[in-house]
Amino acid sequence: MSDGRIDFLYLNEKDMIEAGVLDAGRCVDVMEEVISLMGKGDYLMGGPDHNAHGLMLEFPKKSKIQGFPLEDSRDRRFIAMPAYLGGRFHVAGQKWYGSNGRNRAKGFPRSILMATLNDVETGAPLCYMSANLLSSIRTGAMPGLVAKYFAKDKVGTIGIIGPGVINRSSMRAFMAKFPDIHTVKMVGSTPESKTAQKMKSFIEEHFPQVSDIRICANVQEAVKDADIVCEAASVTYPYWPELKYEWLKPGAVVISTNGLNISWEDELKFSKVVDNWGMYEEYAQEDGDEFHPDGTRKNAGTIGEDFVYMVKDGLIQRDDVKNLADVVNGNVTARENKDEIFLVSIEGMPIQDVAWAYECYHAALKKGIGTMLNLWEKPYAL
Amino acid sequence: MSDGRIDFLYLNEKDMIEAGVLDAGRCVDVMEEVISLMGKGDYLMGGPDHNAHGLMLEFPKKSKIQGFPLEDSRDRRFIAMPAYLGGRFHVAGQKWYGSNGRNRAKGFPRSILMATLNDVETGAPLCYMSANLLSSIRTGAMPGLVAKYFAKDKVGTIGIIGPGVINRSSMRAFMAKFPDIHTVKMVGSTPESKTAQKMKSFIEEHFPQVSDIRICANVQEAVKDADIVCEAASVTYPYWPELKYEWLKPGAVVISTNGLNISWEDELKFSKVVDNWGMYEEYAQEDGDEFHPDGTRKNAGTIGEDFVYMVKDGLIQRDDVKNLADVVNGNVTARENKDEIFLVSIEGMPIQDVAWAYECYHAALKKGIGTMLNLWEKPYAL
Repeated sequence: MSDGRIDFLYLNEKDMIEAGVLDAGRCVDVMEEVISLMGKGDYLMGGPDHNAHGLMLEFPKKSKIQGFPLEDSRDRRFIAMPAYLGGRFHVAGQKWYGSNGRNRAKGFPRSILMATLNDVETGAPLCYMSANLLSSIRTGAMPGLVAKYFAKDKVGTIGIIGPGVINRSSMRAFMAKFPDIHTVKMVGSTPESKTAQKMKSFIEEHFPQVSDIRICANVQEAVKDADIVCEAASVTYPYWPELKYEWLKPGAVVISTNGLNISWEDELKFSKVVDNWGMYEEYAQEDGDEFHPDGTRKNAGTIGEDFVYMVKDGLIQRDDVKNLADVVNGNVTARENKDEIFLVSIEGMPIQDVAWAYECYHAALKKGIGTMLNLWEKPYAL
Repeated sequence: MSDGRIDFLYLNEKDMIEAGVLDAGRCVDVMEEVISLMGKGDYLMGGPDHNAHGLMLEFPKKSKIQGFPLEDSRDRRFIAMPAYLGGRFHVAGQKWYGSNGRNRAKGFPRSILMATLNDVETGAPLCYMSANLLSSIRTGAMPGLVAKYFAKDKVGTIGIIGPGVINRSSMRAFMAKFPDIHTVKMVGSTPESKTAQKMKSFIEEHFPQVSDIRICANVQEAVKDADIVCEAASVTYPYWPELKYEWLKPGAVVISTNGLNISWEDELKFSKVVDNWGMYEEYAQEDGDEFHPDGTRKNAGTIGEDFVYMVKDGLIQRDDVKNLADVVNGNVTARENKDEIFLVSIEGMPIQDVAWAYECYHAALKKGIGTMLNLWEKPYAL
């Protein structure tokens, strides 16, 4: 029997950096472990189906109540994302964050995120940590992992749709895993977009080996000749970037993290991959069926959810959509021919946060980083 | 524009006690504010209906995976409970906890809980705090609030079903609001139950004005002549304590916080009250319809959920169930005659945690209690 005392580690953003949170290449490897464990069922996420992305506080668009917080800016929400991850991790935890498009003007990031790790046996907190960098890096690591399995041998050109913070993280992962990348083409909201300029400077500063960095006028130009196309456009319906199959190079891999506007006809032509089929089934169930006045189904925009509807409508078979985990675990071949073009849907999952949090926590413990906090010497007997 | 710096307060259990978390009478008053705001719609909980209790990690009963955490002890789970509360609180937050029946043997409480408060505009953490006492006291305050509105003028005798930690907290609330209580009768799992002995010692120590404390052999004996009956039996189906309407004193108030086994016929006789109708509707939707082989409906055990099924099955009208909030806000009369016996279903809601956390946080700020932690001087530009 322990004496009942509980201490836990606090890691602020500076501590997280010292603990290695920015190591994108290492994070790709850890995400590979996460996806492998997911494929084996060695995880739990929220809810009875164990696949919930999280639980959101959804702000209303209007309210009769004076001062009630409204959905009146981009991404305004709070989400709690709990998970358990097995294998060598064997740890529970959660990410909890609030977002508000107005934060930037106040000198804050749009989202402010914190993560907690907990002993899965007792529930005791192990670590409370700043999760902004953690979340960005693990998000960017996933396109890196997808590219590792689905890209053709040589990756020289990257096409970026939405050159914001997520794709800066994706670039860290791509560069860590594909040192031969020489060209990056990107398209932002406008050719003068500040985020595009920022991405250009970011690549110049961090990856001088990229000799050709182009800000393009439209999606067609940005994806032309790209080996990997990575979409992370922070926009909502009906502003999803339009993409046509014919614009893509044979053998390309298109990774969608937010939403794309692709016609059903075009969507059929792609080889289809998702990170977690069950999660998109849950989304489709929550969102329900929506049709245009002419009876055709509306795109969900989230590509994985589109795939679920395509199966439901009999356009494709369930087996036509590969699970990334089955490929990582060697149960399914990634690429069947050199010309097939992949459309890969990925979304954030709390098991990814828990895994990267766990790595940073252990690195911090090893290096003596952070502030140890006492919860109680002995729990108060109420 | 701020300089982007974020600091927040950490409160361990000792800090929380200094900040006043154990003030049960004050907590009843704060819960009154919470319920009033809830009745006015000035809150958000999780999900599209804004009424989710939380998001749970549900452990499976068995797994083929070596070492996978199982539902192999009482209350084993993790839950994230996010909420926004309006009015003078105007703050977001969440409680996150893990529970495991095996914790006691290790010198830990069964649940280990932490709460976070966040600026609802920016999402920035304001306070991270130990939430074991917070959660217990707010849970016990709710029966105190129910009794304040529904009990007859004189409250002298309390009947306790399940004399554990929740009902010790309920006793703190009852004693704070009804100083004339002279008799407490209780029933535990057995007449020799250690928790019953502990409750007896607890009352003797804290409330010497209670002259008659009896550990009873069964529920019938414990509820006899009681003005208020408070059930908090930490058991699951089929072990809910059986209660019969005829055992109760005219004018009594029965408060159920976990589950009771009452026949449908008897349940019909009570005047019915719930803390949040929408939450029980969500439970009923999740649980679905369950029937005995003879076609009669199974009791849900959670009384509020039973009420939802009774409305669904046409046994009662929706208006036959009063919302506590409507009574607190003066829209509905609590008691219509001196003899009616109330059956009141209450469940924990994250808005209660957020409110009591907010009170403790502000008390701590005022008294200079706790540890200020820095998240970042300036957010790292990724």
